[in-house]
Amino acid sequence: MLPAPATVGMPVSDVDTPALLLDLDAFEFNLDTLARTLDGRSVKLRPHAKSHKCPTIARIQMDRGAVGVCCQKVSEAEALVDGGVTNVMISNEVVGAGKLARLARLARRAKVLVLADHPDNVDALQRAAQDAQVTLEVLVEVDVGAGRCGTEPGEPAAELAARIAASPNLDFGGIHAYQGGAQHLRTPAERETAIRKALDMVNATRDALARRGLEARTVTGAGTGTYLLEAASGVYNEIQPGSYVFMDADYGRNLEGDGQPVHTFRHSLFILSTVMSRPAEARAIVDVGLKAHSVDSGMPLVADVPGAKYLRASDEHGLVELAPGTSVPLGTKIRLIPGHCDPTVNLYDWLVCYRGDRVEAIWPISARGAFY
Amino acid sequence: MLPAPATVGMPVSDVDTPALLLDLDAFEFNLDTLARTLDGRSVKLRPHAKSHKCPTIARIQMDRGAVGVCCQKVSEAEALVDGGVTNVMISNEVVGAGKLARLARLARRAKVLVLADHPDNVDALQRAAQDAQVTLEVLVEVDVGAGRCGTEPGEPAAELAARIAASPNLDFGGIHAYQGGAQHLRTPAERETAIRKALDMVNATRDALARRGLEARTVTGAGTGTYLLEAASGVYNEIQPGSYVFMDADYGRNLEGDGQPVHTFRHSLFILSTVMSRPAEARAIVDVGLKAHSVDSGMPLVADVPGAKYLRASDEHGLVELAPGTSVPLGTKIRLIPGHCDPTVNLYDWLVCYRGDRVEAIWPISARGAFY
Repeated sequence: MLPAPATVGMPVSDVDTPALLLDLDAFEFNLDTLARTLDGRSVKLRPHAKSHKCPTIARIQMDRGAVGVCCQKVSEAEALVDGGVTNVMISNEVVGAGKLARLARLARRAKVLVLADHPDNVDALQRAAQDAQVTLEVLVEVDVGAGRCGTEPGEPAAELAARIAASPNLDFGGIHAYQGGAQHLRTPAERETAIRKALDMVNATRDALARRGLEARTVTGAGTGTYLLEAASGVYNEIQPGSYVFMDADYGRNLEGDGQPVHTFRHSLFILSTVMSRPAEARAIVDVGLKAHSVDSGMPLVADVPGAKYLRASDEHGLVELAPGTSVPLGTKIRLIPGHCDPTVNLYDWLVCYRGDRVEAIWPISARGAFY
Repeated sequence: MLPAPATVGMPVSDVDTPALLLDLDAFEFNLDTLARTLDGRSVKLRPHAKSHKCPTIARIQMDRGAVGVCCQKVSEAEALVDGGVTNVMISNEVVGAGKLARLARLARRAKVLVLADHPDNVDALQRAAQDAQVTLEVLVEVDVGAGRCGTEPGEPAAELAARIAASPNLDFGGIHAYQGGAQHLRTPAERETAIRKALDMVNATRDALARRGLEARTVTGAGTGTYLLEAASGVYNEIQPGSYVFMDADYGRNLEGDGQPVHTFRHSLFILSTVMSRPAEARAIVDVGLKAHSVDSGMPLVADVPGAKYLRASDEHGLVELAPGTSVPLGTKIRLIPGHCDPTVNLYDWLVCYRGDRVEAIWPISARGAFY
């Protein structure tokens, strides 16, 4: 692991590049905003740690009232528990004997929840929990429109729930109903339609559970794009937004109720780059390419240079087009707003936290690369 | 850093996932093929290590006759030198006092070459070399059509070369003329046209150098897509292919002289995935998403399941569409051919090397994440 690109107290302009920066004022604003928008709603908050992979942020979220966090992998959960997080839901299926054994062992050290969407996986979870002499809380993942993992809603989900409930070392925890496909639908109307359909599927599943004498203790899901809808539904009692702490460029393209791009949250996450070549009047090359941010959701935005556009990424370079007359000398440091925060954060070992123009803290991204 | 997902001697089917696999037979075939296609050409080989970031591979390349390797960052060069590589060209500009000081210090331990495309950077290189009491070999980067870094060819390049030659601690090494944009032009005719234009620009630069009494000791460039053209040019005396050791899906779409997709080289690099959800007859979800491969050059190919297509990646999931009647039970391990090798390799700490169905070696990807 490389050393951190900064030290506490340093001016931001001295930070080595590429670096992942967190504007603490904007970050705290986002935490406050989430709390404010949920005021009066009786839903629990379980933020998604797959976005930040940082136990320090997870602990801040729990100190502010979150019941726990989500993550996607066993090794990610291990890193979070090692970092002092006491309650982690792996909002994903865990398949493979080695991973299941680690999952069950982790349940001795922290409250651990996991999903299932297949009877064979339920049986494997039972064996692992029995071997480790623990009880695992297992939720049924229901596909409520995302078309990824999950059982069909209604009877198939209830059948799987019954299998969980009948497993001596498993505790049926409820319904996991995350509509991932709805998060980046651009208009509020599109998102509302998608979540209304998801609610119908959750209700059908609750009815099917009731016919078997089962109840979903928890109905959980939601992301930064839709959480207000799930929170107001009266059906979900837990929500899992993750990206709200950072707000990447792609989430920034969602429209809010007033028809404007997202303004409730602020961009707090930046990539600090250095201009390493000035081959032409209108072209600056920065030292941030495909190995320093993910382009799956589009190119990053240029934060500090009016009219500048990051046009193209190669492995170690970014091509920035400058507006006529822009002064950007060699060595200039420029902040970029990443297109997609989650896979970008996963490229960094350190989060350089600043306030104003000073580095205030350096947090390890302990679950960086934790994909087992 | 997480532990390796395998142990030597283990069957490949027991390797934990996601894992980066190297088929050693195919890898050695590719090394042999490169040597065979260069037989009789008097060009030096300096393979690009930005593709593999692995000192073990760099040493194998040098044992087979490479004069050294290329890389893109100072920290990458440090990792390679720490791993026993004795000759490294940073085929890139290095900007910033801290990085330049490290570069100059590294030149005490190994032969280090670097590029420049700006007079201010030449002066900064001189200061750093003087402070460290070393001589740095510096090549002028010339933009021969890629439109990224580099001076204009001809007189501007010669002017910069003269500045390098006049710097007491710098040694003018020659011309770096890499046509990156030509590498993935699909037809041989397109690539030939691009490299012919690049040759004109290199020749114009050599003429301009000659008018100043300077000579380019080395003319270097070329990638996996075009290296045969540069090698046959009589102008380039060094080539830098990198991806040929692996052959990713995107390079595989290039056409060879017979109009067929690349068949001279073989795919040696794979991502091992596990089927973690089987929500529908035609849909398998694998545990390899955006944090385990880069999609900038398209989705990975599915190696082991006829008719299967990797359609979509989310952060931790891959959606694979199956042909009717395909049997892929939960837990099946499937090899994927990454779309783009370089940023994919950068996500892994370990290269699991296998022959047949046994793990033969595990090589550390020591320069993983080395982007400073």
